[in-house]
Amino acid sequence: MQLGMIGLGRMGANLVRRLTRGGHECVVYDVNADAVAALAAEGATGTNSLEEFAAALTTPRAAWVMVPAGLTGDTVFKLADLFEPGDTIIDGGNSYYRDDIERAKALVPKGIHYVDVGTSGGVFGLERGFCLMIGGEPDVVKRLEPLFATIAPGVDAAPRTPGRSGEPTQAEQGYLHCGPVGGGHFVKMIHNGIEYGMMAAFAEGLGVLQKAGIGRTSAADHDAETTPLTHPEYYQYDFDIPEVAEVWRRGSVVASWLLDLTAVALVEDPELATFGGRVSDSGEGRWTVLAAVEEGVPAHVLTASLYERFSSRGEALYSDKILSAMRKQFGGHHEKPSS
Amino acid sequence: MQLGMIGLGRMGANLVRRLTRGGHECVVYDVNADAVAALAAEGATGTNSLEEFAAALTTPRAAWVMVPAGLTGDTVFKLADLFEPGDTIIDGGNSYYRDDIERAKALVPKGIHYVDVGTSGGVFGLERGFCLMIGGEPDVVKRLEPLFATIAPGVDAAPRTPGRSGEPTQAEQGYLHCGPVGGGHFVKMIHNGIEYGMMAAFAEGLGVLQKAGIGRTSAADHDAETTPLTHPEYYQYDFDIPEVAEVWRRGSVVASWLLDLTAVALVEDPELATFGGRVSDSGEGRWTVLAAVEEGVPAHVLTASLYERFSSRGEALYSDKILSAMRKQFGGHHEKPSS
Amino acid sequence: MQLGMIGLGRMGANLVRRLTRGGHECVVYDVNADAVAALAAEGATGTNSLEEFAAALTTPRAAWVMVPAGLTGDTVFKLADLFEPGDTIIDGGNSYYRDDIERAKALVPKGIHYVDVGTSGGVFGLERGFCLMIGGEPDVVKRLEPLFATIAPGVDAAPRTPGRSGEPTQAEQGYLHCGPVGGGHFVKMIHNGIEYGMMAAFAEGLGVLQKAGIGRTSAADHDAETTPLTHPEYYQYDFDIPEVAEVWRRGSVVASWLLDLTAVALVEDPELATFGGRVSDSGEGRWTVLAAVEEGVPAHVLTASLYERFSSRGEALYSDKILSAMRKQFGGHHEKPSS
Amino acid sequence: MQLGMIGLGRMGANLVRRLTRGGHECVVYDVNADAVAALAAEGATGTNSLEEFAAALTTPRAAWVMVPAGLTGDTVFKLADLFEPGDTIIDGGNSYYRDDIERAKALVPKGIHYVDVGTSGGVFGLERGFCLMIGGEPDVVKRLEPLFATIAPGVDAAPRTPGRSGEPTQAEQGYLHCGPVGGGHFVKMIHNGIEYGMMAAFAEGLGVLQKAGIGRTSAADHDAETTPLTHPEYYQYDFDIPEVAEVWRRGSVVASWLLDLTAVALVEDPELATFGGRVSDSGEGRWTVLAAVEEGVPAHVLTASLYERFSSRGEALYSDKILSAMRKQFGGHHEKPSS
Repeated sequence: MQLGMIGLGRMGANLVRRLTRGGHECVVYDVNADAVAALAAEGATGTNSLEEFAAALTTPRAAWVMVPAGLTGDTVFKLADLFEPGDTIIDGGNSYYRDDIERAKALVPKGIHYVDVGTSGGVFGLERGFCLMIGGEPDVVKRLEPLFATIAPGVDAAPRTPGRSGEPTQAEQGYLHCGPVGGGHFVKMIHNGIEYGMMAAFAEGLGVLQKAGIGRTSAADHDAETTPLTHPEYYQYDFDIPEVAEVWRRGSVVASWLLDLTAVALVEDPELATFGGRVSDSGEGRWTVLAAVEEGVPAHVLTASLYERFSSRGEALYSDKILSAMRKQFGGHHEKPSS
Repeated sequence: MQLGMIGLGRMGANLVRRLTRGGHECVVYDVNADAVAALAAEGATGTNSLEEFAAALTTPRAAWVMVPAGLTGDTVFKLADLFEPGDTIIDGGNSYYRDDIERAKALVPKGIHYVDVGTSGGVFGLERGFCLMIGGEPDVVKRLEPLFATIAPGVDAAPRTPGRSGEPTQAEQGYLHCGPVGGGHFVKMIHNGIEYGMMAAFAEGLGVLQKAGIGRTSAADHDAETTPLTHPEYYQYDFDIPEVAEVWRRGSVVASWLLDLTAVALVEDPELATFGGRVSDSGEGRWTVLAAVEEGVPAHVLTASLYERFSSRGEALYSDKILSAMRKQFGGHHEKPSS
Repeated sequence: MQLGMIGLGRMGANLVRRLTRGGHECVVYDVNADAVAALAAEGATGTNSLEEFAAALTTPRAAWVMVPAGLTGDTVFKLADLFEPGDTIIDGGNSYYRDDIERAKALVPKGIHYVDVGTSGGVFGLERGFCLMIGGEPDVVKRLEPLFATIAPGVDAAPRTPGRSGEPTQAEQGYLHCGPVGGGHFVKMIHNGIEYGMMAAFAEGLGVLQKAGIGRTSAADHDAETTPLTHPEYYQYDFDIPEVAEVWRRGSVVASWLLDLTAVALVEDPELATFGGRVSDSGEGRWTVLAAVEEGVPAHVLTASLYERFSSRGEALYSDKILSAMRKQFGGHHEKPSS
Repeated sequence: MQLGMIGLGRMGANLVRRLTRGGHECVVYDVNADAVAALAAEGATGTNSLEEFAAALTTPRAAWVMVPAGLTGDTVFKLADLFEPGDTIIDGGNSYYRDDIERAKALVPKGIHYVDVGTSGGVFGLERGFCLMIGGEPDVVKRLEPLFATIAPGVDAAPRTPGRSGEPTQAEQGYLHCGPVGGGHFVKMIHNGIEYGMMAAFAEGLGVLQKAGIGRTSAADHDAETTPLTHPEYYQYDFDIPEVAEVWRRGSVVASWLLDLTAVALVEDPELATFGGRVSDSGEGRWTVLAAVEEGVPAHVLTASLYERFSSRGEALYSDKILSAMRKQFGGHHEKPSS
């Protein structure tokens, strides 16, 4: 079937490619004319303005918005002005699910449908397919199902879960209508929250592994800042972290796609010398914590993994200074200079 | 080659089966004669005492001890009394790596070698192979390599990590000589610490998902104990958790063996009605935290995941009562009865 | 000077008493006529309706709203309808500072001023005075200063901070104009966030103390759920927690009002037998976490203290069941039944 | 009564001064002869060697060892060689309670008693008195009680806890015989663990306060690393942190000695410009976590406060690099350079 795609960055472009390869017809638009031309060369119908884009789509139109998060709302409403009742706008970006709810509400008077799609897969999605978490009205989502089925990895992407039988469900094909509008991005938000926690688990564990030779440091290297080890003889190891990550990929309980990626990263740069350790965070990790707090559900791990990213960027500095200032007051401790 | 196996529980028996199928010769012993008989029927050489076991092995002997953690030390030393210089004892159980170091030291005067092997794979190891993390003297570990290669999942168990080339390393075959004695169990300890963190990430994330309909609860259900939601309209979802777990298995960033297992569990018991929520912990999670603390490496996530298990078993109760008692003092708050 | 007080619960009534004793004139109103009568008997001017209340105040009016959080907005706007330009409404309740900002904005067209006051002191405030954190326009706050000075504990409530000299500042008297509207409740929010963290620190520490005799438990009491202690000889204590709390009150680093209250609670109920351990949380603790997340400032401790309260009320149950379900899958572990 | 003091650093010297002023007789020794001379000038009996020190004490001797933690064991055993059955050695330093247990055991054959004293009070102890947490045999501790009573702050140091009556207990005087040997340092360890948690609560809360003006930063200052604020209008504050700390000292729930010290520190250096934010940790915070883990008691807050100190010293760097490396793999995210 036909789909319009606005936003031809890496994600948008790969979605178009997957759809085109799957036999769908794509009408594309981007503020960057080169991006349009590139996909047109691959078989998509290029357009040069939102108006032209809207005109090129047959009604009931279906348009997927895949622009940077800060521009999504604007793009949705501009598009809505060019669309007609019965048309559908799909937000496939990293939107906050609450914004979906508000946008959908605002489009109701115009008779325009709104579908939100949380899309996971990163740079590998073109080949692996994208995992799709979808929110919206049932009949609208149903109509778009051929598109989702093509974008998703498909049933063969993983062995069937024991205990399942019969016709594969949507989920088994790699896409899921999760619930009413916002539900797709809610599930995607939690997915990313979990991702943060898993990443932190690997990062911390490897961090402890990496320092397992601390007992070999001579006592002279210790100072008042660091408590001396009671048993240095238990910390005499020098583990080959890239090989450890590799061995866990086979047969262990922590086998996972994130571990596969870690193994790749450690082959590329075994000492991680190209990284300074400032870790960004996107909205989803934060929103997951806000949801946990509002629901009253404890989420120690997901929250800690977010805070560790804040700390990696120096955001604990004021708090740390407060601690040093207190220590100086009650104990006369003088903080070790930053050297 | 020949290996002796002491302890024919699920893990020990499956190791023997994998070795036998792989063409190795196994001499087995267990206090339970039936377990011995069962494996003898499958081609192993059964023995009825430690003495008989030691006698049935050709020198230099290699014996794998796979008994409950509390019995390992005893078994190792009894065996050592029957062994000769040049023989090797392999501890494949869930030992604390420090005990390995101490045991190996105690065996040095007898000329007996000690190898520690952290073994991951659980109930699936017989078919999938076991991920092996090995500590010990290089030449001793090298001599045993044919056994490890057979037990491990093998190179085909995962696609090759991009960037790797040439002859596959040990790690790519699913076993790794990690370092001197204790190093195998150290790496296994960290592996399990990471496993705890990953499990908690899934558990917390699904916990937040599961309560995403809290806004539908009528205000009358709220009480002084719970802060009312500012925006109940944002918590109106009723997600199908088994399907969510399933969809993430294909193309998402959190795809992992633990997610596969979660999906299985949710097919078997979608409401998790057969579980009370008391989560055990084994030594490895605790030891990981001890190592983090002694090394001075922050491990918020791994530690929180351990503490959540303690809490699940009611171990926060006294602390919680202290909080209620304080609240009563300064605010006259009366704790809601447990109903 | 004159102040109107709406809401004569414990806090409102005690504020009126402190003001009356300090020579101010109070006009009071509450939906509960008995509460009005009680304070009228103590020298306040009672009124029987919001209209009567507004009429009894001389312009420019100043009215303090001290009603349950859920009713504050409503009361403020009803009152605003009866007030005139130049009058001031003070929100002294536990409002979310964002609501202050929105309410103040809504009152601008009416020319009515809005001041928010975070009030700490609990049941002891009548005697100790209340710590006041104030937000609003500078001249409006200034006009009300005589009231704040009377409500606050006063300069003698604590020894002067070394390094301070000259005329005592507002803060040294126990009240502080923190900034523009919302600023009072923002500072109060953080105050309560810190309070949660401090309470948790005591609760956890005493929790570890309380279990320091775990090594005396016979091995037979241990089971597969609990890792056996490596060194039971180090956990043979039976501490007298009420006496420990008491000794820390003199000369130790943790001396604090919260410790004083803990000591009281432990005298009243040394075993805490009257508590079930379900700990409520109010909005401030949650809002502090939301602010930390939005600002990108790590707040591990404050957040963990909030989550521990959620857990105390059973809110981790679903997550815990997920963990047990995973463990059963990969290890065949059967969760220990709940009793 | 008579006491010998070995180690005349700040703590040891102040203990001697408090004892001398209280009418006790002190025999003192330190490797630094000037320190001995200084206290001799204040009325103590100076000695120039351990032998002279032992000879100057009347039997049954009582000697307090107050040397750096690393030297305590050595000093205790050297002293024991010079002492006789019935004499007592008091370890008043920051020892690990397990070392107390082992040392006491080693002294049993010599008939020498061992008492451990956790001492809190820091640089203020000379004037305020020291809070003493004591472990040892009942009759031995009882014999030393006059010394403890003089060192401790005394009953007037805090108002009596409501509900207590009759003769003040030891705890009400500021010292407590907590239990058998090691018990004093166990309680002190927990005290310091709580201290870490309280300090972190203040540090984090003030950290969130300090960044409450983040909404005033122009959008241009934001970049891909930081999620833009949804509501910058709610983060427009510029709080005067020194005044906020001061106002909380009167009438608030967080009033505490640590807050008093924070207020002093913020008067001395309102911008904390003299601190780099590298926060040391001593053994007690670590040991508290080890105890929590071994007892199976959750201690999220105490542990997080310890890990935050590790992070402040850069110990999360490797983990952070792992996170960045993963992010680059799955999302093509390039870490912001450290600038």
